[in-house]
Amino acid sequence: MGKVLMKGNEAIGEAAIRAGCLNYFAYPITPQSEVAEYLSRRMPEVGGMFLQGESEVAVAYMLFGASACGERVFTTSSSPGISLMSEGISYVAGAQCPVVFVNIIRGGPGLGGILPSQGDYFQATKGGGHGDYRLLVMAPASVQETVEMVMMAFPLAEKYRNPVMILGDGLIGQMMEPVEFPDHLRTEPTNKDDWATNGMDTRKDNKQNLVKSLYLDPTQLNDHNLLLKAKYERMKQEDVRYEPYNTDTDYKVLIISYGTMSRVCRTAIDNLKAEGLEVGMIRPQTLFPFPEKAIHDAAIKESCKAVISIEMSMGQMVEDVERCVQGKRPVEWYGKCGGDVPTPEEIMDVVRNWKLET
Amino acid sequence: MGKVLMKGNEAIGEAAIRAGCLNYFAYPITPQSEVAEYLSRRMPEVGGMFLQGESEVAVAYMLFGASACGERVFTTSSSPGISLMSEGISYVAGAQCPVVFVNIIRGGPGLGGILPSQGDYFQATKGGGHGDYRLLVMAPASVQETVEMVMMAFPLAEKYRNPVMILGDGLIGQMMEPVEFPDHLRTEPTNKDDWATNGMDTRKDNKQNLVKSLYLDPTQLNDHNLLLKAKYERMKQEDVRYEPYNTDTDYKVLIISYGTMSRVCRTAIDNLKAEGLEVGMIRPQTLFPFPEKAIHDAAIKESCKAVISIEMSMGQMVEDVERCVQGKRPVEWYGKCGGDVPTPEEIMDVVRNWKLET
Amino acid sequence: MGKVLMKGNEAIGEAAIRAGCLNYFAYPITPQSEVAEYLSRRMPEVGGMFLQGESEVAVAYMLFGASACGERVFTTSSSPGISLMSEGISYVAGAQCPVVFVNIIRGGPGLGGILPSQGDYFQATKGGGHGDYRLLVMAPASVQETVEMVMMAFPLAEKYRNPVMILGDGLIGQMMEPVEFPDHLRTEPTNKDDWATNGMDTRKDNKQNLVKSLYLDPTQLNDHNLLLKAKYERMKQEDVRYEPYNTDTDYKVLIISYGTMSRVCRTAIDNLKAEGLEVGMIRPQTLFPFPEKAIHDAAIKESCKAVISIEMSMGQMVEDVERCVQGKRPVEWYGKCGGDVPTPEEIMDVVRNWKLET
Amino acid sequence: MGKVLMKGNEAIGEAAIRAGCLNYFAYPITPQSEVAEYLSRRMPEVGGMFLQGESEVAVAYMLFGASACGERVFTTSSSPGISLMSEGISYVAGAQCPVVFVNIIRGGPGLGGILPSQGDYFQATKGGGHGDYRLLVMAPASVQETVEMVMMAFPLAEKYRNPVMILGDGLIGQMMEPVEFPDHLRTEPTNKDDWATNGMDTRKDNKQNLVKSLYLDPTQLNDHNLLLKAKYERMKQEDVRYEPYNTDTDYKVLIISYGTMSRVCRTAIDNLKAEGLEVGMIRPQTLFPFPEKAIHDAAIKESCKAVISIEMSMGQMVEDVERCVQGKRPVEWYGKCGGDVPTPEEIMDVVRNWKLET
Repeated sequence: MGKVLMKGNEAIGEAAIRAGCLNYFAYPITPQSEVAEYLSRRMPEVGGMFLQGESEVAVAYMLFGASACGERVFTTSSSPGISLMSEGISYVAGAQCPVVFVNIIRGGPGLGGILPSQGDYFQATKGGGHGDYRLLVMAPASVQETVEMVMMAFPLAEKYRNPVMILGDGLIGQMMEPVEFPDHLRTEPTNKDDWATNGMDTRKDNKQNLVKSLYLDPTQLNDHNLLLKAKYERMKQEDVRYEPYNTDTDYKVLIISYGTMSRVCRTAIDNLKAEGLEVGMIRPQTLFPFPEKAIHDAAIKESCKAVISIEMSMGQMVEDVERCVQGKRPVEWYGKCGGDVPTPEEIMDVVRNWKLET
Repeated sequence: MGKVLMKGNEAIGEAAIRAGCLNYFAYPITPQSEVAEYLSRRMPEVGGMFLQGESEVAVAYMLFGASACGERVFTTSSSPGISLMSEGISYVAGAQCPVVFVNIIRGGPGLGGILPSQGDYFQATKGGGHGDYRLLVMAPASVQETVEMVMMAFPLAEKYRNPVMILGDGLIGQMMEPVEFPDHLRTEPTNKDDWATNGMDTRKDNKQNLVKSLYLDPTQLNDHNLLLKAKYERMKQEDVRYEPYNTDTDYKVLIISYGTMSRVCRTAIDNLKAEGLEVGMIRPQTLFPFPEKAIHDAAIKESCKAVISIEMSMGQMVEDVERCVQGKRPVEWYGKCGGDVPTPEEIMDVVRNWKLET
Repeated sequence: MGKVLMKGNEAIGEAAIRAGCLNYFAYPITPQSEVAEYLSRRMPEVGGMFLQGESEVAVAYMLFGASACGERVFTTSSSPGISLMSEGISYVAGAQCPVVFVNIIRGGPGLGGILPSQGDYFQATKGGGHGDYRLLVMAPASVQETVEMVMMAFPLAEKYRNPVMILGDGLIGQMMEPVEFPDHLRTEPTNKDDWATNGMDTRKDNKQNLVKSLYLDPTQLNDHNLLLKAKYERMKQEDVRYEPYNTDTDYKVLIISYGTMSRVCRTAIDNLKAEGLEVGMIRPQTLFPFPEKAIHDAAIKESCKAVISIEMSMGQMVEDVERCVQGKRPVEWYGKCGGDVPTPEEIMDVVRNWKLET
Repeated sequence: MGKVLMKGNEAIGEAAIRAGCLNYFAYPITPQSEVAEYLSRRMPEVGGMFLQGESEVAVAYMLFGASACGERVFTTSSSPGISLMSEGISYVAGAQCPVVFVNIIRGGPGLGGILPSQGDYFQATKGGGHGDYRLLVMAPASVQETVEMVMMAFPLAEKYRNPVMILGDGLIGQMMEPVEFPDHLRTEPTNKDDWATNGMDTRKDNKQNLVKSLYLDPTQLNDHNLLLKAKYERMKQEDVRYEPYNTDTDYKVLIISYGTMSRVCRTAIDNLKAEGLEVGMIRPQTLFPFPEKAIHDAAIKESCKAVISIEMSMGQMVEDVERCVQGKRPVEWYGKCGGDVPTPEEIMDVVRNWKLET
């Protein structure tokens, strides 16, 4: 199959199916209800299952249960819905279940609005739920990348036995772009007999598996947390993803930006280049693990005078950027959080101001 | 009234009453159910109200509703219970309601265990719920300090029209200590006629108030987020609290630690001093706003060779410490997260290792 | 206090308060939400309590819990809401808790409509919930009678330790009539120390009470059901209530009708009398216990040729009338069930037809 | 397939599948949880679906939704679970959806016990939910008859577009008997294109269907109720089922009994015959429509001196028997309701007493 023109939300649903995931649990919420609409029609065609829960709380535990049985499962929701799943996400992470979550962020906090936002960065990367756990978080910048990240999410979740979150925004969900679904990203679940409660079959010589997050013995719970920590450290070694842009120049300013926001930044960078001002960008594709070294190294390039975190949030990723830059360059934040995406002109002004100051 | 011997969980309940809060909504969960037990008996004696919700989700919206009417309200819960409130907390923050939350953390993630932990640091300080918002977070290290922080929480919540969270752990809740309830911390709600839906009374010349978190217009939602951001910046100016310990010496190592963990660190510091090794400590009393400048300044003291964040979590506060220290000193983490509190001997070993290395 | 002009739904709320009931749990539903509106304002004025549950299922168990503690409690709802309480009503009846239910019936089945109906006759008198139990059911025909029945409901419920239901319809709830609240109907709870879990107080020498509906031993459960049956038999002896109308004449036809429907029948009877046709009526005021003997005796009067059950339902009470009349006179049904109340003219036609036929 | 030995609860599940129903929604409750256990394993083998709801309230609406789409659906539950479905049952009946309910009754009211009972006779036959509606109710007396009634239930439900209830008791569910699944009872859904929302397919020339229970216009709602009433009258004409026993003799006493209770009565009748006392029995197989004429005619046989309704309930069916007998013979009740089934000896004593008295 070649390229087809699809809306982001529909492409998300199709990508999950192409990735071999036939179980979708969800509760509708703007701006991503089209995923449910699409899959309510599409899942039966491929022998898959879409079950709408009574609430997002219910959905989280449906995901937990089905995943614990070794099935590939995923959900899609938007900000308030993800909050309602917070307890369940913590359980899923604690019990090491490879569930895939897609959060098409809307403006917050509270009901907020229904337009694009990146306001759930902290929730996704620092764990909205309680306890020490991390999600592997990917942030796509196009419909095609969304498709690929959704397809990669399942084997990554299984590699680490850890939930994976795709963090998009309403633009990703609503925009139409030509996409293809790469065959090589179609994978099979690999290790479920080792841990899932998928039935004891004498032919398969299965062992008795137990999926749980309860460890009443403090030593066992500490050991369990150390095991989780080791997984997160391994993610930092093996699965950091980012895209540099215009970093082979003597850029004066380094932008850190992700998702659809980074596309606007690219335009600004191109325009500024035409004006004679070089600006580099590191676009994190994984928000956790965060491209700490890449950002640090790009920041300390001699030509670079400042680092700006440009976000559709009120200053969240900038904290991670500050951690990476380690005080070696000034770190600033620019952002908006209401649904209006900052324009290239705004970005250009922000950068020019820095040039003036430095 | 002088000093009385009370269990931490009971003192929390009594402190809320002494602070003038007569509305308590909660759902029981170990290790803090004694608060509900205490208040189910005590609230009727003082004409107050304790209402147990059907679930933590319900409790969050009871708090929202009652607070929006201008009443002082609070709840107590433990980690999974707080996760279930995440959507509601985001609504409460977005609608600027001065609700007080007490989280007596248990080990996580998921069901985890019921012993002490500090694993919810990220959830409390980076916003477990969706969207750009912050809680003002205080972390007591004794029952007396818990009482005082609970009593201060109500006027602070009203000062900022922002939820406040007290972050304790099972030790705080279970330990018995002599406490007193300072009269000067008994306050009256100050500004509710300005914003709460507490009835339009012609005598009071009330204006028509609307409490909401929904802003469909992107400019309004951005303005609303800027207003919230300005509040958080003001917190950083006016309400950072921390306690230095042994920082008037030429300490070789600086410990950052909070809550009951910091009491063990004090013992370790005293013991190391007796051995001839000076160690300083900054104990954050507010986790948000975080004592950024105090930690930075203490870290760059010439004698200081290293900073260690000691936590009953797998490396959460350490990220904030790294941000503050700005690469000027090595920053390390030490912690446990299962319910066993690290001993003074363990802390001493950790510090001694650093001395050797540096 | 003399007569005041009140809407039926408001009078219901005020009557409960005047009867000494200060606990109201409810979930709003048309056409009786005005009760909740009235009591949300009025209960605080008298030191009472109105708590809106998350659903009618929740409300039923709030009633159960508070009643088991010895408090006078009541709720109001309409047809679908009562169905949702069915499990709880069975529990309350099984555990012998004196809860008062008011059902302002709307047209059914399912969502039906919001106009007056008597379609819940079976549900009320034969037990909507599972198992052998009965409610004492009263059906008022005016706002004044509604007030009196609500006020009588509490001592009756306590006399039998059995739930009581007031069965009204939308007309009762919406019509305005002058009412008074008779002082002699203001009563005190009488026997709660004998059975309620209202605290063990050494001064009161309370015994340890247990309120439950679970009896796993078959002999105990049978004995329990026999005890309940004995109560229902006692109701039939002591608390049957009905109102005869025009029965001192040589009526040709006997009408059985209750509630607001009976008021239309009175007009029809008066009109027919003017035409020279005598018609009698027995109006059951209690639907359980049903006025079996009164109806039987009135039916077998020599002049009487037929009995007609006139209902705003599709033939429910007529089954009880058939049982009473024992085949000694033809028994017919006339009714409507959509919200339009049959007119006096329709009733007159129905009766005239019978005269022709007999 | 010939006879197989099966437990009643398992046979219920298998019978539904054999009848062509591949959709089962349920929430477990003693004493019928084996149906869910059986179908959780069996449904996937036949390409069917078992979905456990969050509660019985949820299950009722899953049934409603799936049935409205034209699928054959059923559930099984026990007394309190059926009460929780009451609102939903009324909706399903109002919207004319052919759902099949199986109620394996346990002792009530409230939690009651888990042993056999017939205490839900009223709830099943008079409509536990609100509004004017009836279920077609069948009561089997053996596992084989249960199988056949379950298989007949689906086409009957479709014939009338009305819910059907199978009323069993714990004995039916737990006993093991050899059963066969008659091929001629395997049927296909017949009329769903006429009313169900099963998709508009141009090839099928479907019309636009609407499934609802809401009729705000009083005339429409009355018409709707008249249409429902006409269906119930048709059931009385076409689908009354009962089994006479020993009624070709000059019996002195007529027993009315159903379900497993009737099997004990048969033994008592056989024993009394051996003693020289003839006793007849009418066993209703449909409880609604009730075999009114059959009972009336059997009661007025000249030899017959009395009619006894023998029930595992506290006097429910006896009201219908009284209605049928029309005062032409004395009607008595004998029963127990705790889980102990009356023995043949008890029944014989009851009958002998009547002989003495008459």
